[in-house]
Amino acid sequence: MSSDLTKIPLSESEMPRTWYNIQPDLPRPVPPPYHPGTLQPLTPPDLMPLFPVALLQQEMSPERYIEIPEEVFDIYRLWRPTPLVRARRLEKALDTPAHIYYKYEGASPVGSHKPNTAVAQAYYNKLEGTRRLATETGAGQWGSALAMAGRLMGLDVTVYMVKVSYQQKPYRRLLMESYGATVYASPSEVTEAGRKVLAATPNSTGSLGIAISEAVEDAVKHEDTKYSLGSVLNHVLLHQTVIGEECIAQLAKADEYPDIVIGCCGGGSNLGGIANPFLRDKLTGRKPNLRVIAVEPAACPTLTKGKYLYDLGDSVGLGPMVKMYTLGHSFVPEGIHAGGLRYHGDSPIISLLYDEGLIEAVAYHQNPVFAAAAQFIATEGLLPAPESAHAIKAAMDEAIKCRESGEKKVILFNLSGHGHFDLTAYDAYFQGKLVDTEYSSADVEAALAGLPQPAGV
Amino acid sequence: MSSDLTKIPLSESEMPRTWYNIQPDLPRPVPPPYHPGTLQPLTPPDLMPLFPVALLQQEMSPERYIEIPEEVFDIYRLWRPTPLVRARRLEKALDTPAHIYYKYEGASPVGSHKPNTAVAQAYYNKLEGTRRLATETGAGQWGSALAMAGRLMGLDVTVYMVKVSYQQKPYRRLLMESYGATVYASPSEVTEAGRKVLAATPNSTGSLGIAISEAVEDAVKHEDTKYSLGSVLNHVLLHQTVIGEECIAQLAKADEYPDIVIGCCGGGSNLGGIANPFLRDKLTGRKPNLRVIAVEPAACPTLTKGKYLYDLGDSVGLGPMVKMYTLGHSFVPEGIHAGGLRYHGDSPIISLLYDEGLIEAVAYHQNPVFAAAAQFIATEGLLPAPESAHAIKAAMDEAIKCRESGEKKVILFNLSGHGHFDLTAYDAYFQGKLVDTEYSSADVEAALAGLPQPAGV
Repeated sequence: MSSDLTKIPLSESEMPRTWYNIQPDLPRPVPPPYHPGTLQPLTPPDLMPLFPVALLQQEMSPERYIEIPEEVFDIYRLWRPTPLVRARRLEKALDTPAHIYYKYEGASPVGSHKPNTAVAQAYYNKLEGTRRLATETGAGQWGSALAMAGRLMGLDVTVYMVKVSYQQKPYRRLLMESYGATVYASPSEVTEAGRKVLAATPNSTGSLGIAISEAVEDAVKHEDTKYSLGSVLNHVLLHQTVIGEECIAQLAKADEYPDIVIGCCGGGSNLGGIANPFLRDKLTGRKPNLRVIAVEPAACPTLTKGKYLYDLGDSVGLGPMVKMYTLGHSFVPEGIHAGGLRYHGDSPIISLLYDEGLIEAVAYHQNPVFAAAAQFIATEGLLPAPESAHAIKAAMDEAIKCRESGEKKVILFNLSGHGHFDLTAYDAYFQGKLVDTEYSSADVEAALAGLPQPAGV
Repeated sequence: MSSDLTKIPLSESEMPRTWYNIQPDLPRPVPPPYHPGTLQPLTPPDLMPLFPVALLQQEMSPERYIEIPEEVFDIYRLWRPTPLVRARRLEKALDTPAHIYYKYEGASPVGSHKPNTAVAQAYYNKLEGTRRLATETGAGQWGSALAMAGRLMGLDVTVYMVKVSYQQKPYRRLLMESYGATVYASPSEVTEAGRKVLAATPNSTGSLGIAISEAVEDAVKHEDTKYSLGSVLNHVLLHQTVIGEECIAQLAKADEYPDIVIGCCGGGSNLGGIANPFLRDKLTGRKPNLRVIAVEPAACPTLTKGKYLYDLGDSVGLGPMVKMYTLGHSFVPEGIHAGGLRYHGDSPIISLLYDEGLIEAVAYHQNPVFAAAAQFIATEGLLPAPESAHAIKAAMDEAIKCRESGEKKVILFNLSGHGHFDLTAYDAYFQGKLVDTEYSSADVEAALAGLPQPAGV
C-alpha cells in the first residue's frame, strides 16, 4: 500500500554510506579489458597512467559494498538525497492505475546525476597526487560535473567537448568555465588525435569516441594529469548506485517496490546507477520478476542493434578494448539533440546484463520522445533533459499498457537531468524541425566486419 | 546547539499549510493605492479589471493566516519543501564562527522562488474564470514561473519581456515558450504603451516599468485576460512566505534561529518571502534583536537612495500609484546583469518596514557581487543567479564581521535562484568586462521633483 506522499523525503542520516558493486552478484565475471595493439588482457599497471590505483581497484573489486569516503559524502549532502517524486499528475493525465515515480537527479548543482561519480573520481585522484584531470564531454553534463568536482577538490580540469555540442550549447561551456575548467571543441588542434581527425575531415562535428581519444592522449602525455570517464566503466556505475540505494530507502517509506525500473542509456551510468541496487534483488532471487528497461535513441541503438564484441572505447585506439554492445568505434551518429546518448558503445556491466537477458532495451525516435517530454512538462512542470525524456517515454508507454491491462504496476524511472541547457532542442521540436534518423543493422554489420577479437573470448 | 546536518530535511506532512500575512502585525497599515489620474484612493472594484477578487481580498486582508488551497499545495509539493543547506564549506573558507544557512529556491522547475506566487495567482484566476494572463518579466524568472503555472492550471500566458533580457537570455524565452507562453520583447509594437516608447526612443532596451504598462494595457483591453505581477504587491509577498515558514520549521530541526535574515531586493518578494515569518517574531516582541537585510545593486538603489513617496508602479501610468521607496517611475537602469533587481520601486510592505527602521538595506556594485558568487561556487558548488549573489555577498560580509568579532551568529539567506540562464553574465565577469554603474541621490532628486502626491498622506 502506498502512502499519499508526492515527494518522498529521506533524511541525511538515512542516506546510503556505501556504494553497491554488482560484480560479485553477476552470473559471470565482466570480461576484462584488452590491449588494442597486442590483444592481450590488460593488467592494472597498464592502466595506471590513466587512472589512480583506488579506481582501478574498484574497477575489478570483488567486494559487494564499498564505503563512500567522508569527504565525498560531505559534498554529496550538498544536494543529496535527491527528490523521489510520485508523478501523480502524469498518472492522472494518462488515466493509468500504475504508480509512476521519478528520481530527480537534476537537483544537483550542474543539473544531472554526473557529479555522483565526478566527485568520487576527483577525490581518489587528489588522494594519489593527481594535479589535473582530462576528460571528454558530449552534451556537456559530464564536463560540467567534473569541472565542479575539480573546483571543489582543488584539481584543474581540461574538457574536450564534442564540437556539435560545443556549438549548440554555449551555456554548458560557460558553466564549465565558471567552475574554472579549460574547454576545447573536439576534434581540436591540441592533440595528435584531434589533428588527425581534422586533417581527414576538417568539418567533423566530433563524437564522444574522438573526444575520448583526445582526453586519453592528454592524460598519457602529462605526468601530473589523469584521465576521467563519465560513464561506461565499472567504477562509474559503482558510484552512481547511490541513486538506486536512495530510491530503495525512499520507496520503502511509501511502502512500494518497483515492478519496472527505467533509465535512458548512453554509456549506461544513469541506468546502472538506478537499476543495479534493484537488480541485486533479482540476481539474488528475491525479486525474480523485476523488469529493467534501457532506453536509447533510434539514431544510436547500441543495445537494440549493436553487437556484443570486443571493441575500442575511443575512436583512435589509445584506450583499452572492452567487451560491450557496440555499433563500431568509428560510428559517428547524426547530430541528434540527446548528446549524452550518442556513444557507440555501452557499459560492460550493462552489456553483460543485456546479453544474459536480465535487462531489456528499447529504442525510440526523438520526435515521440519530445512529445512525451511535452506531456511531462504540462503535467509535472519540470522540463527534462532530452536524454532523460527517453526514460519518460518508456515509463509512459508502460503506464499506458497498465491502463489497458488494468495492472497497478509500480514504475520507477531516472530523471537524470533538467533540460535548461537544451532549450534549442525543444525549440526545434516545437517548430517541427527535429529530424528523426535511424541506424540500421546493415550499417552495424559493415562497421564491425573484420574487427579483430582477442583469442578465446 | 546546532546539529551536524548539512541539508535540513522537512517532510511533506510538516510543510506549512498557510501563508503568513504580515499586515495585521505591522506598526501601521500599508498605505492604500491611489488612482494616478484622480489622486483618489482606489477601491477593489477599480482593480477588478486587473485582478481576481480573491487576490484583491488578500491584498488588504486583516487575517494573519490564509490557507494554502489544496490544488496549490499539490503543485507546491512537486518541488517543495526546498532544501535548507548549512554552507559549511563556505564557513570554513571564510574561517568564520558564524553558521551560514541558505534556502535554495532554485530547486523549483524553473529555477527560482517565483512559482510560489505564480501557481497561487493562476489558481485564483482559474477559479474566477480568467482564460489568459498577461504579465511582464525582467530577467525572465517571473515569466517562466507564470508560464509554468499557466500550463499546469490550463491558462494561456502572454509575457512582455524587457528587451535587454530578451536579447541577453534567449534560453529564458525558449523556456517560457516550452511551457506554451507567448513572449514579446518590450517595448513591443503590440500595445499602445509599447508603441509610444518606441516612437520616442526606438532603441529602448526596455524596463520593468515599461513592460508592466504593456501587460496592464493588454489585460484591461481584453475581457478574458487578467494581469499578473511577480513581485511588489502584498498578495505576492503573502504567497512567498511559504519560504520563510519552511525555514522556521527546518531551522528548528537544527536547533537554530537566525540572528540575521538576508534577501536580495528588486520588488521585494523573495526578501519578504523569507523574512516576513521571522519579522513576525520581531514585531510581536519575541525576537527584538533580529536583523533583516535587503540587498540591492548600486545601479538600482531603491531603498538606499530612493525616496518614500507615492509613485506609479509602471512607467506610463496605467496602474495604480503606491507609496513605496522609488527612484522615479521614469527610471531606466543601466543594463546590469541582475535583471530581476532593476525595478524603480519596491514592495509597499518592504518600504514601510524600511521606513520604520525594522529592516536594513545595503547596495553593492556588481563586480564584488560576482566575486562573492565565485567564492560560493568554489566552495558550495552551486552557481547562483546574479540576483541571489547579492544576498550571498551580504551574508559573506556579515560572516566576515563575525570572524573579526568572534561572534557565532546564525545567518540565513535566500538563494532565490540558480544561474544556469545567466552564464553570459558570469562570462563577462570572468573576462573582466562587467561595468559597474551607480545611481546618485541627485539623479533621484531630479527624477522625483514635482511628482504629484495625494492630499493628506
